[in-house]
Amino acid sequence: MSTKRFTNQQIDRLLRPKSVAVVGASDRHGALGATLLNNLVQYEFAGDIYPVNPKREEIAGLKCYPTVDELPEGIDCAVLAIPRPFVLDTVRSLAARGCGAVVIYSAGFSEAGEEGLKEQLELGAIAAEHGMVIEGPNCLGCTNYVDRVPLSFVETNMLTPPAGARAVGIASQSGALAAVLATTLHPRGCYVSTSVSTGNEAAAGVEDFVEWLVDDANTHVIAMYVESLRRPAAFVAAARRARAAGKPIVMLHPGKSNRAQESAATHTGAMAGDYALMKTKLAREGVIFADTLEELADITEIALRCKALPGANMVVLGESGALRGLAYDIAEDIGLDLLDLNDDNSPKLRALLPDFVPVSNPTDITALGLSEPEIYTKLLTALLEDERVGSVVASIIQSDPITSKIKFPAIIKVLEAGTFAKPLVFAGVDEGARVPEEYIEGLRKVGIPWFPSTERAYRAIARLADLAKRDLSDNSLPPVAVPGLDEVAGVVPEYQAKELLAPLGLPFPQSRFAATADAAAAAAESIGFPVVLKAQAAALGHKSDAGGVILKLNSADEVRAAFDKIFSNVSAYDAAIRLDGVLVEKMGTMGVEMIVGAKSDPEWGPVVLAGFGGVTAEILKDVVLVTPDLSQAQVEEKLLGLRQAALLKGYRGSPELDVPALAKLIVEVGRIMAGNPAIREIDLNPVIVHSKGQGVVALDALMLVER
Amino acid sequence: MSTKRFTNQQIDRLLRPKSVAVVGASDRHGALGATLLNNLVQYEFAGDIYPVNPKREEIAGLKCYPTVDELPEGIDCAVLAIPRPFVLDTVRSLAARGCGAVVIYSAGFSEAGEEGLKEQLELGAIAAEHGMVIEGPNCLGCTNYVDRVPLSFVETNMLTPPAGARAVGIASQSGALAAVLATTLHPRGCYVSTSVSTGNEAAAGVEDFVEWLVDDANTHVIAMYVESLRRPAAFVAAARRARAAGKPIVMLHPGKSNRAQESAATHTGAMAGDYALMKTKLAREGVIFADTLEELADITEIALRCKALPGANMVVLGESGALRGLAYDIAEDIGLDLLDLNDDNSPKLRALLPDFVPVSNPTDITALGLSEPEIYTKLLTALLEDERVGSVVASIIQSDPITSKIKFPAIIKVLEAGTFAKPLVFAGVDEGARVPEEYIEGLRKVGIPWFPSTERAYRAIARLADLAKRDLSDNSLPPVAVPGLDEVAGVVPEYQAKELLAPLGLPFPQSRFAATADAAAAAAESIGFPVVLKAQAAALGHKSDAGGVILKLNSADEVRAAFDKIFSNVSAYDAAIRLDGVLVEKMGTMGVEMIVGAKSDPEWGPVVLAGFGGVTAEILKDVVLVTPDLSQAQVEEKLLGLRQAALLKGYRGSPELDVPALAKLIVEVGRIMAGNPAIREIDLNPVIVHSKGQGVVALDALMLVER
Repeated sequence: MSTKRFTNQQIDRLLRPKSVAVVGASDRHGALGATLLNNLVQYEFAGDIYPVNPKREEIAGLKCYPTVDELPEGIDCAVLAIPRPFVLDTVRSLAARGCGAVVIYSAGFSEAGEEGLKEQLELGAIAAEHGMVIEGPNCLGCTNYVDRVPLSFVETNMLTPPAGARAVGIASQSGALAAVLATTLHPRGCYVSTSVSTGNEAAAGVEDFVEWLVDDANTHVIAMYVESLRRPAAFVAAARRARAAGKPIVMLHPGKSNRAQESAATHTGAMAGDYALMKTKLAREGVIFADTLEELADITEIALRCKALPGANMVVLGESGALRGLAYDIAEDIGLDLLDLNDDNSPKLRALLPDFVPVSNPTDITALGLSEPEIYTKLLTALLEDERVGSVVASIIQSDPITSKIKFPAIIKVLEAGTFAKPLVFAGVDEGARVPEEYIEGLRKVGIPWFPSTERAYRAIARLADLAKRDLSDNSLPPVAVPGLDEVAGVVPEYQAKELLAPLGLPFPQSRFAATADAAAAAAESIGFPVVLKAQAAALGHKSDAGGVILKLNSADEVRAAFDKIFSNVSAYDAAIRLDGVLVEKMGTMGVEMIVGAKSDPEWGPVVLAGFGGVTAEILKDVVLVTPDLSQAQVEEKLLGLRQAALLKGYRGSPELDVPALAKLIVEVGRIMAGNPAIREIDLNPVIVHSKGQGVVALDALMLVER
Repeated sequence: MSTKRFTNQQIDRLLRPKSVAVVGASDRHGALGATLLNNLVQYEFAGDIYPVNPKREEIAGLKCYPTVDELPEGIDCAVLAIPRPFVLDTVRSLAARGCGAVVIYSAGFSEAGEEGLKEQLELGAIAAEHGMVIEGPNCLGCTNYVDRVPLSFVETNMLTPPAGARAVGIASQSGALAAVLATTLHPRGCYVSTSVSTGNEAAAGVEDFVEWLVDDANTHVIAMYVESLRRPAAFVAAARRARAAGKPIVMLHPGKSNRAQESAATHTGAMAGDYALMKTKLAREGVIFADTLEELADITEIALRCKALPGANMVVLGESGALRGLAYDIAEDIGLDLLDLNDDNSPKLRALLPDFVPVSNPTDITALGLSEPEIYTKLLTALLEDERVGSVVASIIQSDPITSKIKFPAIIKVLEAGTFAKPLVFAGVDEGARVPEEYIEGLRKVGIPWFPSTERAYRAIARLADLAKRDLSDNSLPPVAVPGLDEVAGVVPEYQAKELLAPLGLPFPQSRFAATADAAAAAAESIGFPVVLKAQAAALGHKSDAGGVILKLNSADEVRAAFDKIFSNVSAYDAAIRLDGVLVEKMGTMGVEMIVGAKSDPEWGPVVLAGFGGVTAEILKDVVLVTPDLSQAQVEEKLLGLRQAALLKGYRGSPELDVPALAKLIVEVGRIMAGNPAIREIDLNPVIVHSKGQGVVALDALMLVER
């Protein structure tokens, strides 16, 4: 099923128009329509320009049209620099005249309340009916730097990428951030191909423009600012195509904090999505996440400028031992892996260095480079040639023009002379040092990004190395259908859930449902004592709170008494609840309590959550999210990334736990979720994890089925 | 007791010398002695220069001395640019000739092994005998920018602070970082007064130079890089004087990660200290910690340039809603408090803004400032006048010279027109935007730091606001002596520890020591059942592991049997352990298990640790360190900062716990530690915390006493 709403040709009418109408054209300084027109004229837009203004005959030497209804048929794109109340009718008229795309700057739509939302939905309907691309409303416009099309009402610096240059495509839900990102990238010598800000996304969202950027030959990296993806499945499809095309997507997406999520809701009128779910799913599609605007530009520059993205395991050439401790601290803080280098494991490096410089990472060459600058060339080359190395940082004290003259050429020489499928990044230690611009340009020319500080290089590389550490292959096992699922709906109580899931191999204790005291006693006799009795009813969410669970029953009499007790407890707890009966279950040995849950989002699909059980874990949110395409081994690795993973490995004399069995359970739950979209949630809580080889047991099970 | 090793006059001979001998003077390009001499000559050092070189009559127009023995008596400072083997004898000769200070560049001392360490100790001995100040060995020298004394072998940019300018004093254990910091601060328009790098600290450490900088009228902020404080008590004394003098100390101290601690040990030969202890103690002295080099410079600039340090609660003027979500994310990440502003709680701000801009934090004025730049002046002034506000950030899209011309003057006007006892910081959103230098200088001139990115401004302010949130007053209660402490030594077993501590009010269960089975039974009868029996011997560290604890004894017979069982268990566990007897103890109700420990460092003094008990807490390191000068209320606040603090407040229906009682126990343990330096450690584990009003009980107690 295609998730594409627009063909590239349709979007071309916005981003590569042959004709542009400026509705609300003006020559009043500061007016949106004036800056827009000025941008088009100043940068010599190659197509036709049609100013629309009822009060003028001519603006900037161009003939004015009194209304859009007078415009020629089939204009590619109309930019609306007009007040909100006129927008809807104007778009209607433009659609009637076969206009292919509209840019709407005005705010006051879905973000402003009921009425605005209604008009915005109408805009969407018009677009759908006519196959019209609408950018906005509440946006800053777009700029195609390659074809020199500035459809923006802010002053635009039209820096066209030279032929053959790699360039960044920008798709942003915020116009300000799209503009800011271009302003930030340009002075770094990073070109932008096309930048689009989507605002309220009445009819076209970032996912539509990413589809176009993937096919755009002038775009090599895609940088995004997103507050809420309105069509996740469509974006996932676009991200897959981007990956296949070798175009990394770098995304800044606020929402880690609860307050950010609230803010997103008010800002563009987008409903806040589930941040963790989004991030888990998109990480599997190879999206690289930045945490800050600084990181967004930093990561983008590396992705753009370097021959290949960083692999895992970074190494550093440094010039002071003091930087080593700082590197360790920051690496631990941001989850960056520093390759362990020493004299013993690196004979080639050892041979390169004088005796007084031990091989280490960072390697501290002291002030040696001042007298023997060829050490930079040799050591960096050797590090780049080393197969264990995923990326190389030259962390350099730049000092002044004299020092720069010694160091920079020796570093530039590394990539002048060799080609390596991993990045070499130059990171200054002394921000603000007087480095002649030619040296920085010299680095960039051969593909070495220049960073003003080491910290920033580390952070950007950490994000990219994180991508390298992900195995993105689809290791899904075939989905599993649940026989008999058709017969249940809504909240499925424990005994039914277990009846449905046990045949699929999920590990539950031996149990039997019983509707009477005698049946319960008989069940217990056949299962063997001790047993536990658990009240069963769809309406009973919290069995324990209601006195609906009685443990350690050792005889048929105790079971009968417990049966009655449970009925009276639950009735006292809530007279409205009618029990189906009880589940009689074998009591097993104890182990570590964990939880395994799963939910299915209509757009994002299923995800399985696993973590430590109990109050502590809930407070600490010590959980991992697992997509159903991970192999059992990958899930094991994820589990060992839990903060309390030490408990799984056997802590202080306690035995190593059966992580493979837990991972297998998680994989199986994923297969079940994938095979039965009607299952919205499964909750196995607690899951008892026994010593290695002894397996896991899910003591409780709950399902939510919706069709 | 004074901790000062040197008078200011003694240190003046290093940092404000009237005469300098250059031992190993040279005119060979690149030689240390050449760069040093060149620095002195180039910057017109006002005192006498005495080159020492046996092979030359004259260098740079100055008469050469063949050996240090020919030098005049009483030269202030000799800088040794000579190989390591000659250092010790040269220093001896210089001391004999009354030379007041020596700078030693050479490496190869304590960091290089036994022999080097021995020579370094001898250097220390000579210095102590003659009252000589030694900088180094293994250092980069020092530079007094005010009096223009460059005693460094790296090219120095002698930027002398104008009269009346505020300036930073630098004290660093790394020469490279001292140099880097000056290189970084200067282009930001921040002046350095004097910079000292201490290297191996044979005879003078950073603490000695901080003492001098505190009294230096030209120094207003002290920036430090430290790997290990060799004389903590002396540094604490210096830090107190700095605080009294209103000179903030900003410190970069690697060592958060274990690897960084190892690295520090090899780098300058310093033994890695206990990082958390150091940080806890120095935070109480008002030291501000930076995590990275970037932060060190950023924090320093704010401390230097602004009229006052930030208080708690930051507010932001922003120009895009997108920045709001990003601000929330980063604030949560770095522990920065954003003041909650809204239309209802801020009528004055409400009145200033147009209807379509809601009051919030960050307040998003959209593109309004472009047409009405006076909004910057008005809103920022109102925010600075607001008593709730601790600091103000103007987070600005700078774009280009035209935009800068609109925005900057309106922001500069705020501090031109008014004086506020809180910082206003300008933070660009679009790093690299073409901002004319005059605007940045304009900001700086009126006391507004200019930051290239908003993230960095936030991070620096967060560190400074953290200081503002600390109540640094000494809330110590009088120390408490432990009567009878003289009679114990070494590991004090539980029953003795409890006998010693219970009379001081520490909450233990009712218990009695018994050396025979009958005595144990009698003790149990008088205490009341159930009881627990616990094996007692100083040599028995882990009672439970040895089978030395038997719970839930309900009769005299059970107690007798348990008594014998314990003796046989322990004997089977380790035949070498001889039990003193058993402790018979009342069993109480359960509660949440926590731990309270204390240790006393000979230099740092006592600190109390508190946290959640059990394996989970140990893995997660969910503990707080408390100094004994905190009030009970302050300790309560600390406890509520634990990651699992939700458990203390009453989580999901469980009751609120007796945090005040726990805090009181911690305070009392602190008083005991303060009153008895012989107690090296106290370990109360577990401490059972009951519901609010029900108190706490320490179930076990262990003490280590050393004299």
